[in-house]
Amino acid sequence: MTTMEQRPAAGAPSAADRADRVAEWAGPSRTPTDGPLTFEELQLAGRNRGMPLEALRYDITPTGLHYLLVHFDIPAVDPAAWRLSLGGLVDRPLELTLDELRERPSQTIPVTLECAGNGRARLTPRPLSNPWMFEAIGTAEWTGTPLGPLLDAAGVRDDAIELVFTGADRGVQGGVEHDFQRSLSLAEARRPEVMLVYAMNGLPLQPQHGFPVRLVVPGWYGMASVKWLRSIEAVAEPFEGYQQARTYRYKTDADDPGDPVSRIRVRSVMAPPGIPDYFSRRRLVDAGPVTLGGRTWGGRGPIQRVEVAVDGTWADATLAPVAGDFAWRAWSFEWDATPGPHTLACRATDAAGETQPAAAPWNYQGMGNNAIQSIEVTVRPTP
Amino acid sequence: MTTMEQRPAAGAPSAADRADRVAEWAGPSRTPTDGPLTFEELQLAGRNRGMPLEALRYDITPTGLHYLLVHFDIPAVDPAAWRLSLGGLVDRPLELTLDELRERPSQTIPVTLECAGNGRARLTPRPLSNPWMFEAIGTAEWTGTPLGPLLDAAGVRDDAIELVFTGADRGVQGGVEHDFQRSLSLAEARRPEVMLVYAMNGLPLQPQHGFPVRLVVPGWYGMASVKWLRSIEAVAEPFEGYQQARTYRYKTDADDPGDPVSRIRVRSVMAPPGIPDYFSRRRLVDAGPVTLGGRTWGGRGPIQRVEVAVDGTWADATLAPVAGDFAWRAWSFEWDATPGPHTLACRATDAAGETQPAAAPWNYQGMGNNAIQSIEVTVRPTP
Repeated sequence: MTTMEQRPAAGAPSAADRADRVAEWAGPSRTPTDGPLTFEELQLAGRNRGMPLEALRYDITPTGLHYLLVHFDIPAVDPAAWRLSLGGLVDRPLELTLDELRERPSQTIPVTLECAGNGRARLTPRPLSNPWMFEAIGTAEWTGTPLGPLLDAAGVRDDAIELVFTGADRGVQGGVEHDFQRSLSLAEARRPEVMLVYAMNGLPLQPQHGFPVRLVVPGWYGMASVKWLRSIEAVAEPFEGYQQARTYRYKTDADDPGDPVSRIRVRSVMAPPGIPDYFSRRRLVDAGPVTLGGRTWGGRGPIQRVEVAVDGTWADATLAPVAGDFAWRAWSFEWDATPGPHTLACRATDAAGETQPAAAPWNYQGMGNNAIQSIEVTVRPTP
Repeated sequence: MTTMEQRPAAGAPSAADRADRVAEWAGPSRTPTDGPLTFEELQLAGRNRGMPLEALRYDITPTGLHYLLVHFDIPAVDPAAWRLSLGGLVDRPLELTLDELRERPSQTIPVTLECAGNGRARLTPRPLSNPWMFEAIGTAEWTGTPLGPLLDAAGVRDDAIELVFTGADRGVQGGVEHDFQRSLSLAEARRPEVMLVYAMNGLPLQPQHGFPVRLVVPGWYGMASVKWLRSIEAVAEPFEGYQQARTYRYKTDADDPGDPVSRIRVRSVMAPPGIPDYFSRRRLVDAGPVTLGGRTWGGRGPIQRVEVAVDGTWADATLAPVAGDFAWRAWSFEWDATPGPHTLACRATDAAGETQPAAAPWNYQGMGNNAIQSIEVTVRPTP
């Protein structure tokens, strides 16, 4: 890793520096750090995209505001030449064109997606990857065809236990060159909400969201919803590819194989009230009645409760009607703001009784940090 | 400023810390730094959005990939209640609905926009604001009605010298609370390409791009193209608002009033070839013929030439046909890649003979850094 001071100036790097860098990328040790933001994290933050939290106001996130994490490069896919193969342990391998996929029965579902690494930059020490704070979220209306009936058409054999989904994006991670690939158990893949998606918010997928076709696995963190899908393979053994076995794991240290990341942990986020300072993003609020609001979601069961704390005192928020089994739910809270500094926070609890912690258990890759958000505001007297 | 180590943990901050922060935001001194990335820069990078450079492949940037800089919050504007007022030193003040604006003569122009702060994070010491590297760019097809005829309809008086454009976004910057406002001289405002825009890439503006109506000033850095426009006022004196007189200036130090930032400096950017490493973004390229490519643009005259350097040796690239007076232009360069590490670079020269420097003159706010981009790649033998 290089810090901003250590990085080479804009000119050509020295040969030694170049050799160091090649050695580093062949097998980097991305040890979590207490140190400052690194140049590499800045590069990732400049490419990947969070949803500004004021966009919590939209039931459906405008396409250009949805969060985006792209591991490698956004690939260029020619839709006319594109084919989806469904093979491996099946009786009738399929190869589908985009038109054939679109002619199948379709469904449109509002789904909240969240990056498994959301909140990573709030952990200490800080795992090194995209430095998300709160903003790796978004809710879209996804349109596609359910996967289950396609599996039936292909005739998945009894000895298959998983499906491996392969995207068109390729690169190197942890010294391993690979296509982005993830697997799902057949039971998960056959859930009626799991679908092959070709439209988002009523329009064809934009390139960055997986054009022409992606998988969407509602309820799971985003890594399961493989973009730029090109093949599905039924296999008899657990898939051990990089993105399944090496990353997206709840690990205690570098050597711990860890538990797989799967469904989204219960969470709520508040849209910061008032107006911001450009640089610090601290908030200025006028005294008097203020409606606080935000969204809550989770992939492990319906949300039962959202609470809001003003300066540490918790009270129930009002939940809006459910908008879908896999979409976030709006909440609101009436606050009588008094002049001075205040700290606001929110936390959600799901039907299983899981609630957001003050601090989530630390893990080596910074996955699933659903710790409570708190927002500092300054309330000024109303003129 | 706080570094990652110094920032408070996720719990409530101490009263002293809160008081410090309030004092800080009332009049922060954002002195450029040689130090590490700050927490505030990370927050901005998580909100604002660069265009991943592989998207240089698109003549027109997909809406969700266009760069985005929002000073304050994206405002919620009700299009039915929205009115644009055109007043000040005019004979016939106007108040227009969205429908009235859309019924006027329209034009659609491809325009490349770039943030004036693009490249800021490559300067040493680093000015403190959104830490852009190369990615604060994008080209859209903007549809709107030209401003000049509207000015004629309102009858701008002879004593007016400028127009002040006011957006619906409000916040604090440098201790000053204000609406985002910028001015343009009447001569600039009457140029035929300057327009009030209500559609981007054939669809109504998304909220983050200025819904329902924004100004677009082709050829200028992005700050001139005021989003969420709500009023235009003809004035007799130079406008001295914060975003005109205090920032968007080429300043040598904090006390220098500086020169105003205006038209886009000549620039070229290359799409990184090959495949990336996820974390370092270093590139891996197969040996043999490789077509390098990217875009070039500038707001001070047509581009005359793009050159590419491989390991410091410059040669001319091939320019694609011009796509419009204000849109970027594609270029390509055939490279026979040999195994080993290489450094690639590109630079553009415009018709006035201006060319990109190896290092741009440093300035206090990190504006207009059009220094040459260089990309390190590792070429491996072809199997």
